[in-house]
Amino acid sequence: MSTYVLVHGSWHDGTLWNPVAEALSSNGHAVHTPTVAGHGNGVDKHVDHNDCVQSIVDYFETHDITDAILLGHSFGGTVIARVSEEIPDRIRRLVFWNAFVPQRGNSLLDEVPPHYRDLFGQLAAASDDNTVAMPWDVWREAFIQDADVELARTTFDQLSTEPFTPFTDKLALDRFYKSDIPRSYINATEDTALPPGEWGWHPRMSSRLGMYRLVQLPGSHEVMFTNPKLLAAKIVEAGRD
Amino acid sequence: MSTYVLVHGSWHDGTLWNPVAEALSSNGHAVHTPTVAGHGNGVDKHVDHNDCVQSIVDYFETHDITDAILLGHSFGGTVIARVSEEIPDRIRRLVFWNAFVPQRGNSLLDEVPPHYRDLFGQLAAASDDNTVAMPWDVWREAFIQDADVELARTTFDQLSTEPFTPFTDKLALDRFYKSDIPRSYINATEDTALPPGEWGWHPRMSSRLGMYRLVQLPGSHEVMFTNPKLLAAKIVEAGRD
Amino acid sequence: MSTYVLVHGSWHDGTLWNPVAEALSSNGHAVHTPTVAGHGNGVDKHVDHNDCVQSIVDYFETHDITDAILLGHSFGGTVIARVSEEIPDRIRRLVFWNAFVPQRGNSLLDEVPPHYRDLFGQLAAASDDNTVAMPWDVWREAFIQDADVELARTTFDQLSTEPFTPFTDKLALDRFYKSDIPRSYINATEDTALPPGEWGWHPRMSSRLGMYRLVQLPGSHEVMFTNPKLLAAKIVEAGRD
Repeated sequence: MSTYVLVHGSWHDGTLWNPVAEALSSNGHAVHTPTVAGHGNGVDKHVDHNDCVQSIVDYFETHDITDAILLGHSFGGTVIARVSEEIPDRIRRLVFWNAFVPQRGNSLLDEVPPHYRDLFGQLAAASDDNTVAMPWDVWREAFIQDADVELARTTFDQLSTEPFTPFTDKLALDRFYKSDIPRSYINATEDTALPPGEWGWHPRMSSRLGMYRLVQLPGSHEVMFTNPKLLAAKIVEAGRD
Repeated sequence: MSTYVLVHGSWHDGTLWNPVAEALSSNGHAVHTPTVAGHGNGVDKHVDHNDCVQSIVDYFETHDITDAILLGHSFGGTVIARVSEEIPDRIRRLVFWNAFVPQRGNSLLDEVPPHYRDLFGQLAAASDDNTVAMPWDVWREAFIQDADVELARTTFDQLSTEPFTPFTDKLALDRFYKSDIPRSYINATEDTALPPGEWGWHPRMSSRLGMYRLVQLPGSHEVMFTNPKLLAAKIVEAGRD
Repeated sequence: MSTYVLVHGSWHDGTLWNPVAEALSSNGHAVHTPTVAGHGNGVDKHVDHNDCVQSIVDYFETHDITDAILLGHSFGGTVIARVSEEIPDRIRRLVFWNAFVPQRGNSLLDEVPPHYRDLFGQLAAASDDNTVAMPWDVWREAFIQDADVELARTTFDQLSTEPFTPFTDKLALDRFYKSDIPRSYINATEDTALPPGEWGWHPRMSSRLGMYRLVQLPGSHEVMFTNPKLLAAKIVEAGRD
């Protein structure tokens, strides 16, 4: 059996993995779902990207995790790419699930289309703690369109504000791009959190991985809520040797 | 429960929705399947695009339909975009199913690849009433390739000739592109009525909708015949709040 | 019932079709699975592309096969395109399953991305018989990523070295591109043997067929091993009238 470390994306915290983690655990795997620094409710939102990375590195060291399949979702892709530079010997494989794989030197914001760049910047400027709150319409239409409206609402209520600085920090990623840790990309075929086409997840992000293992499933950016068992099965396909 | 108005595409008439409409009705929805002016058999084919639009506007007013989920298939996309400009207050959401979303000022013919433009023009010129008849080979190979040959034949026999003028009329669509009526795009993943790639339906047409809800299903351009129950389920996913 | 002739791809021989052929045969179809010249174990590897083509032409003539649905997988696409130039009257339909459809005058090597061109050239130069051996990592990650590791291993053990000259021979294909034999393209949606995007199978290869019938299924480049029954069903959809 394997050890999975699941790193959530923006507006999420580690507890939101529960349905996926339970599906993996029930098949005998060890599953960790840390919350990234500055994420979730009731925490200090003044963090930068290095703080996010360090919080996951610390989690690995505190729990002495080795031989891990390290998965990142969405923003979490920027975190696992950097974590793999810091503690490569603890990682068996990287799995990016509709996740950012920034080009050398880019921030996450460099990788999203202009209308998102403008929207996130405006929302951060309008906040009192430099965070971005998820707008309901974007959540409903572009993130979780495969849910009924009740599930869309209950999950929306579990989101938290996203610190903006980790979106704008530039990431060198030289060691990541030289690494030979095996890597997989999971693509949900109806994911429109990045708009399909020129700015889409796949193959734009996936192709940056060099030789990688592709796994696809039907579903939206938030298929962890709409079909957690299928996502768990696909995580196993992506993570196994 | 919701009210659906389904606007058919070229070579079709409203009666061909029956299997889809029955699946929606059996779940308690109200379903309307008007025939667009100049479409079907035994009617005057000398119509322009405005006549097509007006016939659907008239249908709404005659039946006093409000709060409608207005769906257009293929050519029907050009009709619902225009209808939404005339009677926006009667429409709750627009759903484009492998449908044209013309750019400002374009005709449908401006949006198809050159080989179709030539073919349709030649067929119209060869007719005695400026209509385009669907060629069997195009129907079998590019429109309904997921049917067995018997279903391909029986559905082919139900088609009618398509008036050519609505293909060539230019559509301003200024009000459509300024509207904030919610919109969805349904994409059948094997639809080759427009050739995949540069000239494909998705994301070329869908991305013109701005923020939209994407729903996909397996099937051809004519999945209404080959899998009407699945299409009905996806129409509900696309149309619900 | 129909007659299928299945032409394997690189590193394969005809016997590897067995699970697919059994699924087709059990539905009453006649199935032929010839081995292309220079392929398999214990044979002379010094063949060129014409030898490959001639071996399939000879097979048709020896078995007096007519009215055949001729399918090619991967490299096999280059073979069936050429075979259709030599014996067009024996072929009812061509089916390309994630197969090369080279542009006029191109070799297979002209149609793969630069990193494959380099890799195959280096492997051929390092061999003592101008052949390319499949590297395990490429097989596991890019060719059969939907298998568990046991199936990946047992199938890897059945592969044989690939003669390099048929990869580099230029193919005129003038008669193929003038032919009106009906043609289909089967695309496995997780096939990364060619990297998705600019260099991908579909729609890059498929669109060269002119009007064609598209059939898709989930799976990798080697779905013949991971889901032979589904592939057989899709071959029937692609091959029937």
